[in-house]
Amino acid sequence: MSGIEFTKMQGLGNDFVVIEGPARLSVDEVTRLCDRRLGVGADGVLVVTPGAPIAMDYWNADGSPAEMCGNGLRCVGRYARDKGWVTEDEFGVDTPVGLRRVRILGELLEAEMGTPLLEGEETIDGRAYHLVDIGNPHAVTVVDDPGDIDVRSEGPVVAQQAGFDAGCNVEFVSVDGDVLTMRVWERGVGETLACGTGMAAAAAVALNGSDGSVTVNVPGGTGSVEIRDGVAWLTGPAEYSFRGVWDQG
Amino acid sequence: MSGIEFTKMQGLGNDFVVIEGPARLSVDEVTRLCDRRLGVGADGVLVVTPGAPIAMDYWNADGSPAEMCGNGLRCVGRYARDKGWVTEDEFGVDTPVGLRRVRILGELLEAEMGTPLLEGEETIDGRAYHLVDIGNPHAVTVVDDPGDIDVRSEGPVVAQQAGFDAGCNVEFVSVDGDVLTMRVWERGVGETLACGTGMAAAAAVALNGSDGSVTVNVPGGTGSVEIRDGVAWLTGPAEYSFRGVWDQG
Repeated sequence: MSGIEFTKMQGLGNDFVVIEGPARLSVDEVTRLCDRRLGVGADGVLVVTPGAPIAMDYWNADGSPAEMCGNGLRCVGRYARDKGWVTEDEFGVDTPVGLRRVRILGELLEAEMGTPLLEGEETIDGRAYHLVDIGNPHAVTVVDDPGDIDVRSEGPVVAQQAGFDAGCNVEFVSVDGDVLTMRVWERGVGETLACGTGMAAAAAVALNGSDGSVTVNVPGGTGSVEIRDGVAWLTGPAEYSFRGVWDQG
Repeated sequence: MSGIEFTKMQGLGNDFVVIEGPARLSVDEVTRLCDRRLGVGADGVLVVTPGAPIAMDYWNADGSPAEMCGNGLRCVGRYARDKGWVTEDEFGVDTPVGLRRVRILGELLEAEMGTPLLEGEETIDGRAYHLVDIGNPHAVTVVDDPGDIDVRSEGPVVAQQAGFDAGCNVEFVSVDGDVLTMRVWERGVGETLACGTGMAAAAAVALNGSDGSVTVNVPGGTGSVEIRDGVAWLTGPAEYSFRGVWDQG
């Protein structure tokens, strides 16, 4: 019985099957790996490939390729460093949207999320959504209390109608000074405990495109986003859950 | 970094972290292991200990000990046989409710579920529930279409009110000749894709306490229950998902 070796990791409750590359996975393999009862179970699959630079590929649980995943990027950084594939405290990772830098900060990691581009607003079902492109597309709306939002109903509607060709992630955010509280609907996944690019997009909206830093509470925990010279950096944890061999590969 | 070695298995979509015993697990360890994002993720933990006979212990995802688990018993049988701990095609397993026999039938296994005792009826919110004790307690109600039932709302109410001191599992079953279709709410877990003792309890109700056999469709697949000389036997699959080492033990 052969199998696929993997490591299960999570950042802010956003969880990943991490596989060492080079590896080619089919849509069927990704969806079966991510099935929480019959497979390993995860929000997505990360393939980390050693090299200069380290390379990261990412698929959502439904098998669709994702441009970027901030919580996944921290996991990739932790994994590559712990494997000894890099020895520096700051290094680059080749992602589907280009090179992104990762910094080891003890137990936490800071990851470069790219430059959030504010691309205007759109009103959907009475809410004003800020459209943000940060390598992947987001629709961010400011609400009084994200806990009051029916994310599973509103999320997929907004994702389709917000004007991005391939849909987008949707963030419902409350702002209290420099503390944001957010729930997120991810295309291809559904509501998740956290979304790194969504946290950066929400920070850009709260800071109105200026440099600055905010704390961001998500259902999976708390991170912080700093925008420096227009570039968003997300600090948060990246933790191991378990290692395994999947027999159904 | 030490860790707990485990195997993830499932039968009819009812999924288990299987650990080789002897092993003592705390409630905290069981709940963290069964967490589907931060742990390994499962409906429960099975501890299988070699010996004559093989021993099986079982905990629900919430850390509560369970008397019996039919889908788990098949997984235990498959595991013990594949490990070479037994060489016969039929052997006994020491469970919390006493010795239960398992038979290897090629890809499928048949497991002895015990003697279902019909303990009368109780009407709750307008539905008649048959109370069945088969090592653990069940409330079984016959409905036109289990797909129409709000299992998450009705299940926990019935579990508390059906007259068993420690609650019970609740089965909503339609009967079409010798084919049953069932949804189940398990105490300590919630709605699950399958429940072996529940399938046996439903069969006993459909057969009105007589010997006979029925096919039972559950959301996780199809099994069959035969009652021979008053003892229920459940046939179904028991499959490996993956092996792993949990680092948070």
